[in-house]
Amino acid sequence: MAASSMIMRLELENRTSFGEVAAVIGRSGGDVVAIDMIKSSKHTTIRDVTINYTEPTYRNIVNAVSYLPGVEVVNVSDRTFLVHLGGKIEVQPKLPIKNREDLSRVYTPGVARVCQAIAENPVKAYSLTIKRNAVAVVSDGSAVLGLGNIGPEAAIPVMEGKAMLFKQLGHVDAFPICLNTQDTEEIIAAVKAISPVFGGINLEDISSPRCFEIEARLAEELDIPVFHDDQHGTAVVVLAGLINACQLTGKRLEDIRIVVNGIGAAGSAICRMLLTAGVSRLTAVDQAGPLKPGVQYEHPVWNWLAQQPQLENRDGTLEELMSGADVFIGVSRANLLNAEHLKRMASEPIVFAMANPDPEVTPEVAEPFVKVLATGRSDYPNQVNNVLCFPGLFRGVLDCRATSINEDMKLAAAYAIASVVQPEELNEQYIIPSVFNELVSERVRDGVIRAAIRTRTARRVPPEYRD
Amino acid sequence: MAASSMIMRLELENRTSFGEVAAVIGRSGGDVVAIDMIKSSKHTTIRDVTINYTEPTYRNIVNAVSYLPGVEVVNVSDRTFLVHLGGKIEVQPKLPIKNREDLSRVYTPGVARVCQAIAENPVKAYSLTIKRNAVAVVSDGSAVLGLGNIGPEAAIPVMEGKAMLFKQLGHVDAFPICLNTQDTEEIIAAVKAISPVFGGINLEDISSPRCFEIEARLAEELDIPVFHDDQHGTAVVVLAGLINACQLTGKRLEDIRIVVNGIGAAGSAICRMLLTAGVSRLTAVDQAGPLKPGVQYEHPVWNWLAQQPQLENRDGTLEELMSGADVFIGVSRANLLNAEHLKRMASEPIVFAMANPDPEVTPEVAEPFVKVLATGRSDYPNQVNNVLCFPGLFRGVLDCRATSINEDMKLAAAYAIASVVQPEELNEQYIIPSVFNELVSERVRDGVIRAAIRTRTARRVPPEYRD
Repeated sequence: MAASSMIMRLELENRTSFGEVAAVIGRSGGDVVAIDMIKSSKHTTIRDVTINYTEPTYRNIVNAVSYLPGVEVVNVSDRTFLVHLGGKIEVQPKLPIKNREDLSRVYTPGVARVCQAIAENPVKAYSLTIKRNAVAVVSDGSAVLGLGNIGPEAAIPVMEGKAMLFKQLGHVDAFPICLNTQDTEEIIAAVKAISPVFGGINLEDISSPRCFEIEARLAEELDIPVFHDDQHGTAVVVLAGLINACQLTGKRLEDIRIVVNGIGAAGSAICRMLLTAGVSRLTAVDQAGPLKPGVQYEHPVWNWLAQQPQLENRDGTLEELMSGADVFIGVSRANLLNAEHLKRMASEPIVFAMANPDPEVTPEVAEPFVKVLATGRSDYPNQVNNVLCFPGLFRGVLDCRATSINEDMKLAAAYAIASVVQPEELNEQYIIPSVFNELVSERVRDGVIRAAIRTRTARRVPPEYRD
Repeated sequence: MAASSMIMRLELENRTSFGEVAAVIGRSGGDVVAIDMIKSSKHTTIRDVTINYTEPTYRNIVNAVSYLPGVEVVNVSDRTFLVHLGGKIEVQPKLPIKNREDLSRVYTPGVARVCQAIAENPVKAYSLTIKRNAVAVVSDGSAVLGLGNIGPEAAIPVMEGKAMLFKQLGHVDAFPICLNTQDTEEIIAAVKAISPVFGGINLEDISSPRCFEIEARLAEELDIPVFHDDQHGTAVVVLAGLINACQLTGKRLEDIRIVVNGIGAAGSAICRMLLTAGVSRLTAVDQAGPLKPGVQYEHPVWNWLAQQPQLENRDGTLEELMSGADVFIGVSRANLLNAEHLKRMASEPIVFAMANPDPEVTPEVAEPFVKVLATGRSDYPNQVNNVLCFPGLFRGVLDCRATSINEDMKLAAAYAIASVVQPEELNEQYIIPSVFNELVSERVRDGVIRAAIRTRTARRVPPEYRD
């Protein structure tokens, strides 16, 4: 139980004794460490009370104080809320404007010559503006984390967090664009409209199936890369982990039997990524059961999958389908698997249980039966975290001015992430590198640039890649 | 003639002697101060040559080198271009993510609680996200500076420069949004779509008459302030200057006769602002002559003006219309006025000649005949510069979470700017404060907040304004 601290802003009627409040806080498990008087008027005083507490007592304290007569809880800020106050990112000038000469260089009248140079040759926007380094982090707030359709305002903190990671890990200037519409055509039109300033578009937390059309249309209609992170970021990191899990168990992607459960946004992208990587025996399972080869589905990705020769023609319950599988990849729901499922798998089973926030099987249940377990959680080993992919990936596509992100580039990103775990370090608890390993984004950038040049997606060859 | 420096990147065939190149540069008026070898191959070498020069010789040098056989000028970057390389702004995290605990606070899983708090009460986006401090600087690139319709990419450097000024002078996080459409409805839809992240919208360099409808519709359909700076920023600063010019000459806004020439975006806003400020004798002149009271015009602002009792019923040439005028305000074209125009004006004439880049009358011509001259240029006294208005204005509306920017708030901004020039400092050469005077944005903020509270446009009363 981590000790934490919160600041509670209280408005107290003047007849209320603060001692009584402090006593209640103490009895509920909190420790008053500071009191700041914010405002005092004839009838009430407002005070900020800093309280140390351990996690489970948080609610008790807030409730107990709320019930006190003559006390209004104006606001409670814990450390998580405190770091969010006023936002987590800012827009900074790269140089100060100290005098008239500076001003006339970065603004009128000098800037006019720079504008004219770009007007004559728009590609110069890449060298003379932020476009070279800018990514829009676009969400409509329809599928935010595990919270569902919470709307664009409520999505901003996630997009800001992402922008922080973009900068810290990829030196990319990302800006949150949270859209006040959930209409596919309106989203496409808005993103196309704002595209001139950006060198890439990161789509985020847009619900399925709209996310497929939005990404496909934007990729087709824009000349900058468009990447739906919930799909492809997850797929890249899963593949990275799988590459290392195979390495560890001596299995080969070409030989193994894989069951993917949950063919939504992430599941679809994972299936496609696996086929790109050479997987030849795939079972894709959704709520209605396994996808069947040759069947016509309305869902475009399901339909595409059904045409692929690698899709196995199998039937049965999930338990039956897992019979003999080397790998289970779940992007479905909590506690779907039990020991019986796992016992049916091939030797040295590999399980990616990524349901959010609770995995398809807990490590406690899985451990006796599986060789390698990965989840989406940070409190278990082998966290599948998109942060491993997007900063380096976008650094790469920006540096080579890629027009799109193709399967080869994603494959290169996956191998790059996998390569950060050295052979001598590789073990069941460590198939995926830490998000804080700085080598990750560097390697991903390098792999992505090489793949972009090879597949003629790069419009620019960075100096260190010229011969 | 300011000494300047440029960096010329040259690709030289290996048979070309660099001494010859240096000699040509010297003969054209340049001084080679540094040479950096960038790349050497079998047939050519690429070198960056740093050259000091005085302004008029720039073209000579570049041309002379271009004509040399065996030499290709790859690129020329002068200091103005150099400060633009890679853009002038960046997106910075406000705090570093040093470890897992930081990560889980600013991103998943901790961020989920913050998202939920906003989902339950969207107004919390103001305290828990960048919205509190963020302004979109929106342009479609249709009327950029004096350059005309140069497109969204070419407009980016202006919007970035503006973002720098927003931050440095107003501590506002502004981000350039350059739109890939010039269709009124599409612009309105795009700005509405991206509005959730922003606390205000600054429209910029959008051509007339579309700018009127775009601003009016957005102001009506959004609950955050929308401000077309080319219109209202100019109007505010003109009024500020006029207030001080009247102070200096002992004239009163209520009494003076004003001729505004050029009733486009800025001219319309200036006319409206003057009436708000109490001007009672206004002549508004466009290419077809003076607007006439009671006439029905297609242009909505002209039509509005024609209904105002303060619009004088006059006819004639511009020279005739200027007869007896106390003030001439031009937002029209260069060198429109000569001595004859100015001689007809009332005593101690006040002239704002703001055509861009060359004013309606040069200071050299005007000086013998006018008491006060202001222009849009930085190389003459009394520069009417929007930079005096927008940073403080938006700081104010953000701090009080204003829903819009009304005439009272603009009027307050004008008086705030005027107030920075102390009575004992006031003279013909100094009616408008310097853009580097830090008091300006502070005063503007204060005036705007007070006016917003007074007119019930503020959704929040900042602590220092509570009683």
